[in-house]
Amino acid sequence: MENITSKDNKFIKEYIKLSTKKAYRDEQQKFVIESVKLYKEAVATNTKIEKVFVTEQCIEKYFNESEKSFQADKTYIISQEISNKMSELPSSQGIFAILKKPDFLNFTAIKNGKYIVLCDVQDPGNIGTIVRTADAFGLDGVVLAGNSCDIYNIKTIRSTMGSLFRVKIFITNSCMDVVNHFNGNNIITCAAVLDKLAKDISKYKFPNNCAVLIGNEGNGLSQQISDICSEKITIKMAGNAESLNASMAAGILMWELTK
Amino acid sequence: MENITSKDNKFIKEYIKLSTKKAYRDEQQKFVIESVKLYKEAVATNTKIEKVFVTEQCIEKYFNESEKSFQADKTYIISQEISNKMSELPSSQGIFAILKKPDFLNFTAIKNGKYIVLCDVQDPGNIGTIVRTADAFGLDGVVLAGNSCDIYNIKTIRSTMGSLFRVKIFITNSCMDVVNHFNGNNIITCAAVLDKLAKDISKYKFPNNCAVLIGNEGNGLSQQISDICSEKITIKMAGNAESLNASMAAGILMWELTK
Repeated sequence: MENITSKDNKFIKEYIKLSTKKAYRDEQQKFVIESVKLYKEAVATNTKIEKVFVTEQCIEKYFNESEKSFQADKTYIISQEISNKMSELPSSQGIFAILKKPDFLNFTAIKNGKYIVLCDVQDPGNIGTIVRTADAFGLDGVVLAGNSCDIYNIKTIRSTMGSLFRVKIFITNSCMDVVNHFNGNNIITCAAVLDKLAKDISKYKFPNNCAVLIGNEGNGLSQQISDICSEKITIKMAGNAESLNASMAAGILMWELTK
Repeated sequence: MENITSKDNKFIKEYIKLSTKKAYRDEQQKFVIESVKLYKEAVATNTKIEKVFVTEQCIEKYFNESEKSFQADKTYIISQEISNKMSELPSSQGIFAILKKPDFLNFTAIKNGKYIVLCDVQDPGNIGTIVRTADAFGLDGVVLAGNSCDIYNIKTIRSTMGSLFRVKIFITNSCMDVVNHFNGNNIITCAAVLDKLAKDISKYKFPNNCAVLIGNEGNGLSQQISDICSEKITIKMAGNAESLNASMAAGILMWELTK
């Protein structure tokens, strides 16, 4: 295992560029993770790991003997100082990795199952929490559509708590194409809306093949999208109707979809 | 309306001290808010406002003529520079206020209704999101028990999105006392646990007088607390059982409790 002693090392620079620039992640088809939990989840799920950067203190503290088999040609020992420079957390555990993006999944291959479709959802934390909850409830996949935040944003990855490596993620720039594909394949499309006339999900029986669509945090789904969906559904609220955030609404919809 | 031109003004210093120090908030029985939405919610709910700090740009941009009735003796015009110093947001709207805490609500006055009890919940964002969701679903109150994070933490307040002013909040340092009080008043206490033998909430019929208890993010409820509750309940997960965060779990429980 090589030591990296300079903050100007090209691999450290590559890590930081991947961590901060979506365009570079897209070009290189790579992304980065930080933390022991995410690293262990990446190993456990056979995600392709290109480089690992780790402090000696981290190996001692967080890895038992059987886990210490870092691949020598991919692993770099870094100082605490370099770890602090790489980290975006208030207190870093001292482990970072560059990973290869998994193979691209095309939503047009979907023929059945239960999905959540995020149309223009912007907040990295919301997307991560939704992926995490989709994992908990065993959804068949999450579709990130339109102008949604990058799933490989480091904040999104952190809020998935490792679920990123287990949930099937489909990415496309067109919400419309996704709805049309589902509609053409007998997968019922349910637009989640704030509309008292929409079907109350506490009474609605979700079909086995079903996709629930969630819109942007500020504006919801566009009229154009909700109009072509099979159903309009809503979470009836006894209290203040403004008061669910996008990830909470998505979580309750996924719960009803799968329970 | 007076102008404040110095960052060393005593009221600005008081704002910052209230914003950062829980002990000082407790001593003074005051707390602070930032943002147009929270300020307008405070006004709408008749919360006692002690001082308002606002930039001229903020008044122009976010307040229409009918809303511009700031009380002259309580309002201070601040510069953009002072606003930046006071703000804890990446881009501030330029409005801040010092508010009086509402009257203390004692949980021993509760005789019926639906409640969520947070025992040692630590994350400010989780507590805020839970209060916001309790508002959406019309719960009768939220009990912050044990060593839970301060409801007047500025991050907690921000994530309530104004629901702080509408939801009844009960604060106590003893989870045990809360459970004993509810048990003695025919309010069914349901401990939310990660235990396959607990009652599945998708089948459980929540009674009309009921309190759901949520534990700490890392450790859940203590055995001691869950053992004295009337019921143990759980959110069955088809997928990965580790993958719900505390606020999502609380949200789904409140949905089932009230729907």
